[in-house]
Amino acid sequence: MHVDTDRLRADIEANAEHGEIEVDEGRARTVLTGTDANRAARETLVDRMGDAGLDVTVDAVGNIAGTWTPESVDPGAAPVAAGSHVDSVPEGGIFDGPLGVYAALEAVRAMQDAGVEPARPLVVVSFTEEEGQRFSEGLLGSSVAVGERTVEEALATEDGEGVTLEESLERIGFRGEGRLDASDWEAWYELHIEQDTRLERENVPVGVVTTITGITHCEAEIVGEANHAGATPMDERTDALAAASEVVLDVEAAANEVVEEESETAVGTVGSLSVSPDATNVVPGKVEFGVDIRDVDYQSMQTIVEATRSSLAIVEADRGVETSFSRPFDLEPTPMSDTLRAAAHRAGEASGIRTIDLHSGAAHDTMHVADVTDAALLFAPSQDGISHNPREWTDWEDCASATRVLAGAMASVAGADAAEE
Amino acid sequence: MHVDTDRLRADIEANAEHGEIEVDEGRARTVLTGTDANRAARETLVDRMGDAGLDVTVDAVGNIAGTWTPESVDPGAAPVAAGSHVDSVPEGGIFDGPLGVYAALEAVRAMQDAGVEPARPLVVVSFTEEEGQRFSEGLLGSSVAVGERTVEEALATEDGEGVTLEESLERIGFRGEGRLDASDWEAWYELHIEQDTRLERENVPVGVVTTITGITHCEAEIVGEANHAGATPMDERTDALAAASEVVLDVEAAANEVVEEESETAVGTVGSLSVSPDATNVVPGKVEFGVDIRDVDYQSMQTIVEATRSSLAIVEADRGVETSFSRPFDLEPTPMSDTLRAAAHRAGEASGIRTIDLHSGAAHDTMHVADVTDAALLFAPSQDGISHNPREWTDWEDCASATRVLAGAMASVAGADAAEE
Repeated sequence: MHVDTDRLRADIEANAEHGEIEVDEGRARTVLTGTDANRAARETLVDRMGDAGLDVTVDAVGNIAGTWTPESVDPGAAPVAAGSHVDSVPEGGIFDGPLGVYAALEAVRAMQDAGVEPARPLVVVSFTEEEGQRFSEGLLGSSVAVGERTVEEALATEDGEGVTLEESLERIGFRGEGRLDASDWEAWYELHIEQDTRLERENVPVGVVTTITGITHCEAEIVGEANHAGATPMDERTDALAAASEVVLDVEAAANEVVEEESETAVGTVGSLSVSPDATNVVPGKVEFGVDIRDVDYQSMQTIVEATRSSLAIVEADRGVETSFSRPFDLEPTPMSDTLRAAAHRAGEASGIRTIDLHSGAAHDTMHVADVTDAALLFAPSQDGISHNPREWTDWEDCASATRVLAGAMASVAGADAAEE
Repeated sequence: MHVDTDRLRADIEANAEHGEIEVDEGRARTVLTGTDANRAARETLVDRMGDAGLDVTVDAVGNIAGTWTPESVDPGAAPVAAGSHVDSVPEGGIFDGPLGVYAALEAVRAMQDAGVEPARPLVVVSFTEEEGQRFSEGLLGSSVAVGERTVEEALATEDGEGVTLEESLERIGFRGEGRLDASDWEAWYELHIEQDTRLERENVPVGVVTTITGITHCEAEIVGEANHAGATPMDERTDALAAASEVVLDVEAAANEVVEEESETAVGTVGSLSVSPDATNVVPGKVEFGVDIRDVDYQSMQTIVEATRSSLAIVEADRGVETSFSRPFDLEPTPMSDTLRAAAHRAGEASGIRTIDLHSGAAHDTMHVADVTDAALLFAPSQDGISHNPREWTDWEDCASATRVLAGAMASVAGADAAEE
């Protein structure tokens, strides 16, 4: 099978034009679910799927699936699916998500071009709202596809302005019907950029993920007393931002300590923080912030969560602020399918492309899909490990090599081994 | 002279309806310069001035002045002016600013009612953009009235959306002509809420300010590297928010140390802070924040500014972030006129109202006016010292007592001693 590097690159670059933002360095796009940029990215994908002769469906929450069912397929055989997402974080890069969607499409086209005759249908998928930047904590479309969340719950999810997912999908013409059901699939592959530097450091073009870290999102609020910054003596203030600053540093210190003593893959981040009333001449009265905690070891995640709670208790006792804490999102670590991992390594060997095992620190839709069928996650190298950033970059040759491994693995699992070179 | 408590209260409560915001506790208003709420507050003031027979002018930057020139006035005598401002911080209280404007108006009405015959005109003033919430660092209208800034510079000032002060004043019909010139005044009084608890603790209704603290605003930016919060190991991050948190705590610690060792009136505050890209699952790449530093002793302010700079240098060295620092606003401490302070204390004595000396930690337009003529600042008590907050409160009787002292002092300086009881 031959993967066409130029065709894959043309697809990813065409997608990158949707939501494109001018930046000094790198290439940025902002593609939030239900926006005009998201509509354009979806329409381009549907067009490309149509060009490849796929049968395209859009489900009620906007998940897009393009199915190739050649004559070689056994009647009733469960399909092999692969894909990722086309939404992005604000000012995100051009590979995070789109690489996996267009690599899956290129894998199907490569099979078609090579005359591969799979015994199972092949499905190319783009899940809705993976990044969780507008309607959710993320992985929304895949949560519906595995039955963890109902269509109704997902559609009723509101953005910060009170607009529902349903309204936003209807507006862009991607509120389809029915529910894409991942449990119908024989197997699922996702190719994604690594977002770390292990492949780069080892100079290997493809990683095969062993375990996806668990992920917890915590939300905290610290309430002090807004007051005049000039007229309120230092000893009469209850400064919510000073208190929050202690907690930010405590979360960082707790994660560093866990890395040192328990599990070197653990991370803890305060990524979002807002100050109220946020005026230079007013002592901050309220701070809200979000904490992201991950590891392949669930107990280590618990350690960082507990450190966050105890830091909040300390500033409450020491500074007289009031605090609240919630943990709206929590997924335990997810091991990947040994069978599918082995197929990926074999596909690499067959094509002379090196593959190595590694873990994933980032959450992916594959975490959900693994609950209902065999699932695997492949990585392509990220230059300098940078992602969620305009400087996110993967060389086109690496994109093609990883796509070649994906295509081989998909073909193998779809019962088309005979067609492998 | 009799100050009419109900009349004063009715004015302040009518003003409080403009920009009113529903809150659980207290009374909130948001009156930013050039908004519809600001237009309404200005129109109400002009109406009330007209009711009192004042000759109203609006200058090119929207400063409003209402002049009472009775027959008793000596030809060519320089007027005695008094006033404050009607704009507010977001969700500010109802007294900060309006008390001083309407107390000055009530003082004139009290003189009129009592048949006082001043030798000088009396001018009631409302300065534009005192709070600096939309177009500036604050005290904008008074900076023009004292010639520190030109009309053209002020009018060209832009808000965060690129709208100029001139456009916004034209929109609300308050871009007048000429320039209110504070150097034409014989003297200036401002009555303001204390925004601290000294009057409350001593149970005294009127404070006479000795010195207004100097005030410095610093702006700092910390640039790290935005990156995926899950896929970026702890030892590979350059987290701008963790760095900023160290600086926030260092500013607080430096101010506390100065209070302990150099000057107990010093304060240092990080009041505003914004995180970019501000997503829970992205390591913060950039943080911008504003620092407010004040004291009656300029050297102590310098100490806190230097501590802020050195904290930025430390995080730059320790954490690999890049930092920048500017000091866009700096005013040295301002002593008040001894003559006008004495007149205020005498007016209190004559009316049986206790007055005490204190300093002002808050900046006021009086800081500017003091550069060009004799100026004084009076305080009314703030319940619990709270201001810039919906729970800001001053009892109506205290408002009236302070207005009575203001009226007596203005009448005295305007050469109408004979009319004092």
